[in-house]
Amino acid sequence: MQEKPPSLQMFGIRTPLIEPGDNIAKIIIDSLEEQGMQFQEDDVLIIAESPLATAEGRLVDLEKIEPCEKAMELAEEYKLDAREMELILQECDEIFGGVPGAALTITKGTLAPNAGIDGSNAPEGHVVLLPENAQESAGRIRREIMEHCKCKIGVIVGDSRTQPLRLGCVGIALGTSGIVPVEDARGTLDLFGKEMVITRKAMADNLVSAAQLLMGEAGESVPAVLVRGAPVQVVDEDIDMPLFSRDECMYYSNIRKA
Amino acid sequence: MQEKPPSLQMFGIRTPLIEPGDNIAKIIIDSLEEQGMQFQEDDVLIIAESPLATAEGRLVDLEKIEPCEKAMELAEEYKLDAREMELILQECDEIFGGVPGAALTITKGTLAPNAGIDGSNAPEGHVVLLPENAQESAGRIRREIMEHCKCKIGVIVGDSRTQPLRLGCVGIALGTSGIVPVEDARGTLDLFGKEMVITRKAMADNLVSAAQLLMGEAGESVPAVLVRGAPVQVVDEDIDMPLFSRDECMYYSNIRKA
Repeated sequence: MQEKPPSLQMFGIRTPLIEPGDNIAKIIIDSLEEQGMQFQEDDVLIIAESPLATAEGRLVDLEKIEPCEKAMELAEEYKLDAREMELILQECDEIFGGVPGAALTITKGTLAPNAGIDGSNAPEGHVVLLPENAQESAGRIRREIMEHCKCKIGVIVGDSRTQPLRLGCVGIALGTSGIVPVEDARGTLDLFGKEMVITRKAMADNLVSAAQLLMGEAGESVPAVLVRGAPVQVVDEDIDMPLFSRDECMYYSNIRKA
Repeated sequence: MQEKPPSLQMFGIRTPLIEPGDNIAKIIIDSLEEQGMQFQEDDVLIIAESPLATAEGRLVDLEKIEPCEKAMELAEEYKLDAREMELILQECDEIFGGVPGAALTITKGTLAPNAGIDGSNAPEGHVVLLPENAQESAGRIRREIMEHCKCKIGVIVGDSRTQPLRLGCVGIALGTSGIVPVEDARGTLDLFGKEMVITRKAMADNLVSAAQLLMGEAGESVPAVLVRGAPVQVVDEDIDMPLFSRDECMYYSNIRKA
Protein backbone atom coordinates (compact mmCIF):
# COMPACT_ATOMS: atom_id res chain seq x y z
CA MET A 1 0.00 0.00 0.00
CA GLN A 2 1.13 3.52 -0.73
CA GLU A 3 2.28 5.73 2.12
CA LYS A 4 -0.29 8.23 3.38
CA PRO A 5 0.19 11.66 1.75
CA PRO A 6 1.92 14.13 4.06
CA SER A 7 -0.15 16.59 6.11
CA LEU A 8 0.45 19.03 8.94
CA GLN A 9 -1.34 21.27 11.39
CA MET A 10 -0.49 24.74 12.63
CA PHE A 11 -1.75 26.47 15.76
CA GLY A 12 -1.33 30.13 16.61
CA ILE A 13 -0.34 30.74 20.25
CA ARG A 14 -1.97 33.86 21.71
CA THR A 15 -0.04 35.41 24.58
CA PRO A 16 -0.25 38.46 26.83
CA LEU A 17 1.85 41.45 25.69
CA ILE A 18 5.53 40.46 26.06
CA GLU A 19 7.59 42.94 28.09
CA PRO A 20 11.31 43.42 28.83
CA GLY A 21 12.57 40.76 31.23
CA ASP A 22 9.75 38.31 30.53
CA ASN A 23 10.51 34.59 30.35
CA ILE A 24 9.16 33.90 26.88
CA ALA A 25 9.44 30.09 27.14
CA LYS A 26 7.25 30.10 30.24
CA ILE A 27 4.74 32.48 28.65
CA ILE A 28 4.46 30.21 25.61
CA ILE A 29 4.05 27.04 27.70
CA ASP A 30 1.37 28.72 29.85
CA SER A 31 -0.46 30.24 26.87
CA LEU A 32 -0.50 26.92 25.03
CA GLU A 33 -1.89 25.19 28.13
CA GLU A 34 -4.59 27.84 28.39
CA GLN A 35 -5.56 26.89 24.83
CA GLY A 36 -5.93 23.30 26.07
CA MET A 37 -2.82 22.07 24.27
CA GLN A 38 0.66 20.88 25.08
CA PHE A 39 3.86 20.20 23.18
CA GLN A 40 4.26 16.79 21.53
CA GLU A 41 7.30 14.94 20.22
CA ASP A 42 8.69 16.53 16.99
CA ASP A 43 6.60 19.70 17.23
CA VAL A 44 8.27 22.81 15.83
CA LEU A 45 7.75 26.16 17.54
CA ILE A 46 8.21 29.39 15.58
CA ILE A 47 8.69 32.59 17.60
CA ALA A 48 8.61 36.09 16.10
CA GLU A 49 11.89 37.91 16.69
CA SER A 50 10.37 41.17 17.87
CA PRO A 51 8.64 39.98 21.08
CA LEU A 52 11.66 37.77 21.79
CA ALA A 53 14.03 40.71 21.41
CA THR A 54 11.73 42.81 23.59
CA ALA A 55 11.84 40.18 26.34
CA GLU A 56 15.63 40.08 25.99
CA GLY A 57 15.95 43.82 26.63
CA ARG A 58 16.62 44.92 23.06
CA LEU A 59 14.08 47.77 23.21
CA VAL A 60 15.82 51.13 22.72
CA ASP A 61 14.56 54.60 23.67
CA LEU A 62 15.46 56.77 20.66
CA GLU A 63 15.75 59.85 22.91
CA LYS A 64 18.91 58.37 24.39
CA ILE A 65 20.65 57.97 21.01
CA GLU A 66 23.09 60.60 19.76
CA PRO A 67 23.62 60.22 15.99
CA CYS A 68 27.16 60.61 14.64
CA GLU A 69 27.89 62.66 11.53
CA LYS A 70 27.86 59.66 9.20
CA ALA A 71 24.47 58.61 10.60
CA MET A 72 23.09 62.08 9.91
CA GLU A 73 24.33 61.99 6.31
CA LEU A 74 22.93 58.52 5.64
CA ALA A 75 19.64 59.36 7.38
CA GLU A 76 19.28 62.24 4.94
CA GLU A 77 20.06 59.96 2.00
CA TYR A 78 17.66 57.16 2.98
CA LYS A 79 15.00 59.39 4.61
CA LEU A 80 15.37 57.74 8.00
CA ASP A 81 15.41 59.06 11.56
CA ALA A 82 19.07 59.95 12.28
CA ARG A 83 18.95 58.18 15.66
CA GLU A 84 17.61 55.03 14.01
CA MET A 85 20.35 55.34 11.37
CA GLU A 86 22.90 55.55 14.19
CA LEU A 87 21.57 52.27 15.59
CA ILE A 88 21.64 50.72 12.11
CA LEU A 89 25.33 51.60 11.80
CA GLN A 90 26.03 50.14 15.25
CA GLU A 91 24.11 46.93 14.55
CA CYS A 92 24.96 46.07 10.94
CA ASP A 93 27.99 44.26 9.53
CA GLU A 94 27.83 46.14 6.23
CA ILE A 95 25.65 48.66 4.45
CA PHE A 96 25.15 48.48 0.68
CA GLY A 97 22.73 51.13 -0.34
CA GLY A 98 18.99 51.40 -0.11
CA VAL A 99 15.84 53.26 -1.01
CA PRO A 100 13.89 55.96 0.83
CA GLY A 101 12.87 54.38 4.13
CA ALA A 102 15.20 51.40 3.99
CA ALA A 103 18.97 51.02 4.16
CA LEU A 104 20.08 47.66 2.77
CA THR A 105 22.44 45.96 5.22
CA ILE A 106 23.95 42.65 6.14
CA THR A 107 23.32 42.20 9.85
CA LYS A 108 24.33 39.10 11.77
CA GLY A 109 25.12 37.46 8.44
CA THR A 110 21.71 38.03 6.85
CA LEU A 111 20.44 40.68 4.44
CA ALA A 112 18.23 42.98 6.48
CA PRO A 113 16.66 46.35 5.70
CA ASN A 114 17.61 48.83 8.44
CA ALA A 115 19.61 46.15 10.29
CA GLY A 116 16.30 44.54 11.25
CA ILE A 117 15.45 47.50 13.48
CA ASP A 118 11.72 48.01 13.77
CA GLY A 119 9.47 50.61 15.35
CA SER A 120 6.23 48.68 14.95
CA ASN A 121 4.99 46.79 17.99
CA ALA A 122 7.28 48.95 20.15
CA PRO A 123 6.14 51.75 22.48
CA GLU A 124 6.07 55.27 20.99
CA GLY A 125 9.60 56.67 20.54
CA HIS A 126 11.20 53.24 20.86
CA VAL A 127 12.55 50.67 18.43
CA VAL A 128 13.41 46.99 18.83
CA LEU A 129 16.82 45.70 17.74
CA LEU A 130 17.23 42.12 16.48
CA PRO A 131 17.89 39.50 19.17
CA GLU A 132 21.58 39.54 20.05
CA ASN A 133 21.99 35.91 18.99
CA ALA A 134 18.85 34.28 17.59
CA GLN A 135 20.30 30.78 17.54
CA GLU A 136 21.30 30.95 21.19
CA SER A 137 17.84 32.24 22.06
CA ALA A 138 16.24 29.39 20.11
CA GLY A 139 18.47 26.90 21.93
CA ARG A 140 17.69 28.34 25.36
CA ILE A 141 13.95 28.30 24.73
CA ARG A 142 14.06 24.81 23.26
CA ARG A 143 15.88 23.39 26.27
CA GLU A 144 13.55 25.14 28.70
CA ILE A 145 10.45 23.82 26.94
CA MET A 146 11.89 20.32 26.56
CA GLU A 147 12.73 20.20 30.26
CA HIS A 148 9.17 21.17 31.11
CA CYS A 149 7.37 19.05 28.50
CA LYS A 150 9.67 16.02 28.37
CA CYS A 151 9.54 15.75 24.60
CA LYS A 152 11.88 16.61 21.72
CA ILE A 153 10.92 19.76 19.80
CA GLY A 154 12.52 22.22 17.40
CA VAL A 155 12.52 26.00 17.80
CA ILE A 156 12.90 28.70 15.13
CA VAL A 157 13.26 32.45 15.64
CA GLY A 158 11.60 34.07 12.62
CA ASP A 159 11.53 37.49 11.02
CA SER A 160 9.93 39.13 7.96
CA ARG A 161 11.65 40.05 4.73
CA THR A 162 10.63 41.28 1.33
CA GLN A 163 11.84 39.33 -1.68
CA PRO A 164 13.42 41.10 -4.64
CA LEU A 165 10.78 42.78 -6.82
CA ARG A 166 7.92 41.29 -4.80
CA LEU A 167 5.35 43.14 -2.79
CA GLY A 168 4.76 41.98 0.78
CA CYS A 169 6.69 40.28 3.52
CA VAL A 170 7.54 36.60 3.75
CA GLY A 171 9.27 34.65 6.51
CA ILE A 172 12.95 34.12 7.21
CA ALA A 173 14.63 32.13 9.98
CA LEU A 174 17.18 34.12 11.99
CA GLY A 175 18.20 31.16 14.11
CA THR A 176 17.09 27.61 14.77
CA SER A 177 17.66 24.93 17.36
CA GLY A 178 16.77 21.25 17.13
CA ILE A 179 15.95 21.14 13.43
CA VAL A 180 17.82 20.76 10.15
CA PRO A 181 17.26 24.28 8.75
CA VAL A 182 18.18 23.55 5.12
CA GLU A 183 17.66 20.08 3.71
CA ASP A 184 19.88 18.93 0.93
CA ALA A 185 17.86 17.31 -1.83
CA ARG A 186 20.90 16.88 -4.06
CA GLY A 187 21.39 13.29 -5.01
CA THR A 188 17.73 12.35 -4.50
CA LEU A 189 15.92 11.22 -7.62
CA ASP A 190 13.34 13.16 -9.59
CA LEU A 191 10.13 11.74 -11.08
CA PHE A 192 12.13 10.34 -13.98
CA GLY A 193 14.86 8.78 -11.85
CA LYS A 194 17.41 11.51 -12.67
CA GLU A 195 19.56 12.90 -9.85
CA MET A 196 18.56 16.34 -8.55
CA VAL A 197 21.51 18.67 -9.05
CA ILE A 198 21.28 21.88 -7.09
CA THR A 199 18.10 21.79 -5.06
CA ARG A 200 18.15 22.52 -1.38
CA LYS A 201 14.98 23.05 0.63
CA ALA A 202 14.89 26.03 3.00
CA MET A 203 12.76 24.19 5.60
CA ALA A 204 13.29 26.76 8.35
CA ASP A 205 12.45 29.74 6.13
CA ASN A 206 9.37 27.94 4.78
CA LEU A 207 8.23 27.10 8.32
CA VAL A 208 8.49 30.78 9.27
CA SER A 209 6.54 31.81 6.15
CA ALA A 210 3.87 29.26 7.03
CA ALA A 211 3.75 30.58 10.60
CA GLN A 212 3.33 34.13 9.36
CA LEU A 213 -0.01 33.15 7.84
CA LEU A 214 -1.25 32.90 11.44
CA MET A 215 0.94 35.51 13.12
CA GLY A 216 0.07 38.63 11.19
CA GLU A 217 2.28 41.67 11.34
CA ALA A 218 0.26 44.04 13.47
CA GLY A 219 -1.25 43.94 16.96
CA GLU A 220 -2.62 40.44 16.78
CA SER A 221 -0.82 39.07 19.88
CA VAL A 222 0.04 35.80 18.18
CA PRO A 223 3.84 35.92 18.57
CA ALA A 224 4.34 32.16 18.25
CA VAL A 225 3.02 29.28 16.17
CA LEU A 226 3.18 25.56 16.78
CA VAL A 227 3.65 23.32 13.72
CA ARG A 228 2.73 19.67 14.14
CA GLY A 229 3.48 16.91 11.65
CA ALA A 230 5.78 18.85 9.32
CA PRO A 231 8.20 16.55 7.50
CA VAL A 232 11.18 18.34 9.04
CA GLN A 233 14.06 16.57 10.80
CA VAL A 234 13.85 17.31 14.53
CA VAL A 235 17.23 16.60 16.16
CA ASP A 236 18.61 17.14 19.64
CA GLU A 237 21.28 19.66 18.62
CA ASP A 238 21.81 23.21 17.40
CA ILE A 239 22.66 23.32 13.71
CA ASP A 240 23.99 26.63 12.35
CA MET A 241 22.16 28.24 9.46
CA PRO A 242 24.43 27.21 6.58
CA LEU A 243 26.34 30.06 5.00
CA PHE A 244 25.96 30.87 1.35
CA SER A 245 29.03 32.07 -0.49
CA ARG A 246 28.45 35.57 -1.80
CA ASP A 247 29.97 34.69 -5.17
CA GLU A 248 27.46 31.90 -5.65
CA CYS A 249 24.48 34.14 -4.99
CA MET A 250 23.03 35.37 -8.26
CA TYR A 251 21.47 38.37 -6.54
CA TYR A 252 24.46 39.39 -4.46
CA SER A 253 26.96 38.98 -7.25
CA ASN A 254 24.91 41.57 -9.11
CA ILE A 255 24.49 43.99 -6.20
CA ARG A 256 26.53 47.14 -6.52
CA LYS A 257 28.21 48.29 -3.36
CA ALA A 258 27.09 51.86 -2.63
CA MET B 1 -14.61 35.95 25.50
CA GLN B 2 -11.49 36.16 23.41
CA GLU B 3 -11.53 34.86 19.87
CA LYS B 4 -10.04 31.41 19.36
CA PRO B 5 -6.40 31.60 18.22
CA PRO B 6 -6.02 30.99 14.47
CA SER B 7 -5.08 27.54 13.20
CA LEU B 8 -4.91 25.77 9.87
CA GLN B 9 -4.41 22.37 8.29
CA MET B 10 -2.52 21.35 5.19
CA PHE B 11 -2.88 18.17 3.15
CA GLY B 12 -0.56 16.96 0.42
CA ILE B 13 -2.37 15.61 -2.64
CA ARG B 14 -0.61 12.63 -4.19
CA THR B 15 -1.31 12.15 -7.89
CA PRO B 16 -0.23 9.89 -10.73
CA LEU B 17 2.57 11.26 -12.92
CA ILE B 18 1.19 14.28 -14.81
CA GLU B 19 1.68 14.08 -18.59
CA PRO B 20 1.22 16.47 -21.52
CA GLY B 21 -2.47 17.00 -22.28
CA ASP B 22 -3.68 15.85 -18.86
CA ASN B 23 -6.60 17.66 -17.22
CA ILE B 24 -4.91 18.66 -13.98
CA ALA B 25 -8.10 19.88 -12.26
CA LYS B 26 -9.73 16.49 -12.78
CA ILE B 27 -6.61 14.63 -11.62
CA ILE B 28 -6.55 16.71 -8.42
CA ILE B 29 -10.27 16.22 -7.72
CA ASP B 30 -9.95 12.46 -8.27
CA SER B 31 -6.74 12.13 -6.23
CA LEU B 32 -8.26 14.07 -3.34
CA GLU B 33 -11.34 11.83 -3.41
CA GLU B 34 -9.12 8.77 -3.36
CA GLN B 35 -7.62 10.18 -0.16
CA GLY B 36 -11.15 10.30 1.28
CA MET B 37 -11.38 14.09 1.11
CA GLN B 38 -13.20 16.77 -0.84
CA PHE B 39 -12.92 20.52 -1.27
CA GLN B 40 -14.67 22.73 1.30
CA GLU B 41 -15.67 26.39 1.24
CA ASP B 42 -12.63 28.73 1.47
CA ASP B 43 -10.03 26.01 0.89
CA VAL B 44 -6.91 27.16 -0.96
CA LEU B 45 -5.24 24.82 -3.45
CA ILE B 46 -1.56 25.28 -4.28
CA ILE B 47 -0.31 23.63 -7.49
CA ALA B 48 3.37 23.33 -8.43
CA GLU B 49 4.10 25.06 -11.72
CA SER B 50 6.15 22.27 -13.24
CA PRO B 51 3.46 19.54 -13.48
CA LEU B 52 0.95 22.21 -14.53
CA ALA B 53 3.26 23.41 -17.29
CA THR B 54 3.85 19.80 -18.34
CA ALA B 55 0.10 19.22 -18.62
CA GLU B 56 -0.19 22.42 -20.63
CA GLY B 57 2.35 21.21 -23.21
CA ARG B 58 5.31 23.33 -22.09
CA LEU B 59 7.73 20.41 -22.18
CA VAL B 60 10.50 21.03 -24.72
CA ASP B 61 12.81 18.50 -26.36
CA LEU B 62 16.25 20.17 -26.29
CA GLU B 63 17.29 18.28 -29.45
CA LYS B 64 14.88 20.43 -31.43
CA ILE B 65 16.40 23.73 -30.26
CA GLU B 66 18.97 25.56 -32.40
CA PRO B 67 20.90 28.10 -30.29
CA CYS B 68 21.64 31.51 -31.81
CA GLU B 69 25.05 33.13 -31.51
CA LYS B 70 24.09 35.23 -28.49
CA ALA B 71 22.76 32.13 -26.73
CA MET B 72 26.08 30.37 -27.34
CA GLU B 73 28.05 33.30 -25.90
CA LEU B 74 25.86 33.58 -22.82
CA ALA B 75 25.82 29.80 -22.32
CA GLU B 76 29.62 29.96 -22.19
CA GLU B 77 29.49 32.81 -19.67
CA TYR B 78 26.96 31.23 -17.33
CA LYS B 79 28.03 27.61 -17.89
CA LEU B 80 24.66 26.57 -19.25
CA ASP B 81 23.54 24.31 -22.09
CA ALA B 82 23.40 26.56 -25.18
CA ARG B 83 19.99 25.19 -26.17
CA GLU B 84 18.63 25.94 -22.70
CA MET B 85 20.18 29.41 -22.95
CA GLU B 86 18.36 29.88 -26.27
CA LEU B 87 15.07 29.05 -24.54
CA ILE B 88 15.94 31.43 -21.69
CA LEU B 89 16.42 34.25 -24.21
CA GLN B 90 13.11 33.39 -25.88
CA GLU B 91 11.21 33.21 -22.59
CA CYS B 92 12.60 36.06 -20.52
CA ASP B 93 11.69 39.75 -20.52
CA GLU B 94 15.19 40.81 -19.47
CA ILE B 95 18.50 39.30 -18.45
CA PHE B 96 20.67 40.98 -15.81
CA GLY B 97 23.66 38.82 -15.18
CA GLY B 98 24.12 35.66 -13.22
CA VAL B 99 26.48 33.09 -11.78
CA PRO B 100 27.72 29.75 -13.14
CA GLY B 101 24.58 27.66 -13.63
CA ALA B 102 22.06 30.48 -13.36
CA ALA B 103 21.24 33.48 -15.53
CA LEU B 104 19.30 36.08 -13.58
CA THR B 105 16.24 37.15 -15.53
CA ILE B 106 12.90 38.83 -15.23
CA THR B 107 10.37 36.50 -16.81
CA LYS B 108 6.64 37.20 -16.91
CA GLY B 109 7.29 40.09 -14.51
CA THR B 110 9.07 38.06 -11.83
CA LEU B 111 12.76 37.55 -11.05
CA ALA B 112 13.59 34.03 -12.18
CA PRO B 113 16.89 32.20 -12.57
CA ASN B 114 17.09 30.75 -16.08
CA ALA B 115 13.63 32.14 -16.95
CA GLY B 116 12.16 29.50 -14.67
CA ILE B 117 13.23 26.74 -17.06
CA ASP B 118 13.87 23.49 -15.28
CA GLY B 119 15.21 20.10 -16.24
CA SER B 120 14.28 18.31 -13.04
CA ASN B 121 11.10 16.28 -13.08
CA ALA B 122 11.25 16.31 -16.88
CA PRO B 123 12.18 13.34 -19.08
CA GLU B 124 15.87 13.01 -20.05
CA GLY B 125 16.87 15.62 -22.65
CA HIS B 126 13.80 17.73 -21.97
CA VAL B 127 13.08 20.88 -19.96
CA VAL B 128 9.82 22.44 -18.74
CA LEU B 129 9.11 26.10 -19.46
CA LEU B 130 6.97 28.15 -17.05
CA PRO B 131 3.21 28.01 -17.64
CA GLU B 132 2.32 30.44 -20.41
CA ASN B 133 0.05 32.44 -18.08
CA ALA B 134 -0.08 31.17 -14.50
CA GLN B 135 -2.96 33.40 -13.46
CA GLU B 136 -5.13 32.19 -16.33
CA SER B 137 -4.25 28.60 -15.45
CA ALA B 138 -5.16 29.21 -11.79
CA GLY B 139 -8.47 30.75 -12.87
CA ARG B 140 -9.32 27.89 -15.23
CA ILE B 141 -8.56 25.26 -12.59
CA ARG B 142 -10.46 27.17 -9.91
CA ARG B 143 -13.58 27.43 -12.05
CA GLU B 144 -13.40 23.77 -13.01
CA ILE B 145 -13.05 22.64 -9.40
CA MET B 146 -15.75 25.03 -8.16
CA GLU B 147 -18.15 23.76 -10.79
CA HIS B 148 -17.51 20.19 -9.67
CA CYS B 149 -17.44 20.79 -5.92
CA LYS B 150 -20.01 23.59 -5.59
CA CYS B 151 -17.93 25.59 -3.13
CA LYS B 152 -15.75 28.70 -3.30
CA ILE B 153 -12.01 28.04 -3.27
CA GLY B 154 -8.78 29.85 -4.11
CA VAL B 155 -6.04 28.51 -6.39
CA ILE B 156 -2.35 29.43 -6.50
CA VAL B 157 0.27 28.33 -9.00
CA GLY B 158 3.55 28.15 -7.08
CA ASP B 159 7.22 27.94 -7.90
CA SER B 160 10.55 27.82 -6.01
CA ARG B 161 13.03 30.64 -5.61
CA THR B 162 16.16 31.28 -3.64
CA GLN B 163 16.29 34.42 -1.52
CA PRO B 164 19.33 36.72 -1.68
CA LEU B 165 22.25 35.30 0.32
CA ARG B 166 20.16 32.40 1.63
CA LEU B 167 20.69 28.74 0.99
CA GLY B 168 17.69 26.70 -0.14
CA CYS B 169 14.48 27.27 -2.03
CA VAL B 170 11.33 28.92 -0.72
CA GLY B 171 7.94 29.39 -2.35
CA ILE B 172 6.72 32.09 -4.69
CA ALA B 173 3.28 32.52 -6.30
CA LEU B 174 3.36 32.87 -10.09
CA GLY B 175 -0.37 33.44 -10.37
CA THR B 176 -3.46 33.26 -8.20
CA SER B 177 -7.20 33.13 -8.64
CA GLY B 178 -9.87 33.64 -5.99
CA ILE B 179 -7.63 35.00 -3.25
CA VAL B 180 -6.16 38.35 -2.24
CA PRO B 181 -2.47 37.60 -2.95
CA VAL B 182 -0.97 40.49 -0.96
CA GLU B 183 -2.81 41.86 2.06
CA ASP B 184 -2.29 45.44 2.98
CA ALA B 185 -1.71 45.81 6.70
CA ARG B 186 -1.03 49.53 6.41
CA GLY B 187 -3.37 51.51 8.61
CA THR B 188 -4.02 48.62 11.02
CA LEU B 189 -2.84 49.20 14.56
CA ASP B 190 0.16 47.63 16.23
CA LEU B 191 0.28 46.31 19.81
CA PHE B 192 0.70 49.86 21.08
CA GLY B 193 -2.12 51.34 19.01
CA LYS B 194 0.25 52.99 16.52
CA GLU B 195 -0.58 52.78 12.80
CA MET B 196 1.49 50.29 10.81
CA VAL B 197 3.32 52.18 8.07
CA ILE B 198 4.68 50.00 5.31
CA THR B 199 3.76 46.42 6.07
CA ARG B 200 2.12 44.25 3.48
CA LYS B 201 1.68 40.51 3.90
CA ALA B 202 2.63 38.28 0.96
CA MET B 203 -0.14 35.76 1.68
CA ALA B 204 0.15 33.93 -1.65
CA ASP B 205 3.94 33.58 -1.43
CA ASN B 206 3.67 32.38 2.19
CA LEU B 207 1.00 29.84 1.24
CA VAL B 208 3.30 28.45 -1.47
CA SER B 209 6.22 28.26 1.01
CA ALA B 210 3.96 26.45 3.47
CA ALA B 211 2.86 24.04 0.72
CA GLN B 212 6.47 23.33 -0.20
CA LEU B 213 6.97 21.78 3.24
CA LEU B 214 4.74 18.96 1.99
CA MET B 215 5.57 19.02 -1.72
CA GLY B 216 9.27 18.44 -1.74
CA GLU B 217 11.37 19.23 -4.77
CA ALA B 218 12.17 15.79 -6.10
CA GLY B 219 10.16 12.76 -7.21
CA GLU B 220 7.64 12.78 -4.41
CA SER B 221 4.51 12.96 -6.60
CA VAL B 222 2.83 15.52 -4.35
CA PRO B 223 2.28 18.28 -6.95
CA ALA B 224 -0.56 19.97 -5.04
CA VAL B 225 -1.43 20.89 -1.47
CA LEU B 226 -4.77 21.80 0.08
CA VAL B 227 -4.73 24.47 2.80
CA ARG B 228 -7.78 24.60 5.06
CA GLY B 229 -8.54 27.33 7.57
CA ALA B 230 -5.87 29.83 6.51
CA PRO B 231 -6.87 33.40 7.36
CA VAL B 232 -6.70 34.40 3.71
CA GLN B 233 -9.45 36.27 1.88
CA VAL B 234 -11.10 33.90 -0.60
CA VAL B 235 -13.01 35.92 -3.20
CA ASP B 236 -14.82 34.99 -6.39
CA GLU B 237 -12.51 36.89 -8.73
CA ASP B 238 -9.02 36.92 -10.24
CA ILE B 239 -6.79 39.52 -8.61
CA ASP B 240 -3.52 40.31 -10.38
CA MET B 241 -0.30 39.91 -8.42
CA PRO B 242 0.36 43.55 -7.54
CA LEU B 243 3.37 45.07 -9.26
CA PHE B 244 6.24 46.49 -7.29
CA SER B 245 7.95 49.54 -8.71
CA ARG B 246 11.57 48.74 -9.45
CA ASP B 247 12.74 51.99 -7.90
CA GLU B 248 11.09 51.11 -4.60
CA CYS B 249 12.80 47.71 -4.39
CA MET B 250 15.89 47.97 -2.23
CA TYR B 251 17.40 44.93 -3.92
CA TYR B 252 16.64 45.88 -7.50
CA SER B 253 17.73 49.48 -7.13
CA ASN B 254 21.12 48.06 -6.17
CA ILE B 255 21.32 45.45 -8.91
CA ARG B 256 23.78 46.30 -11.63
CA LYS B 257 22.59 45.61 -15.15
CA ALA B 258 25.13 43.28 -16.80
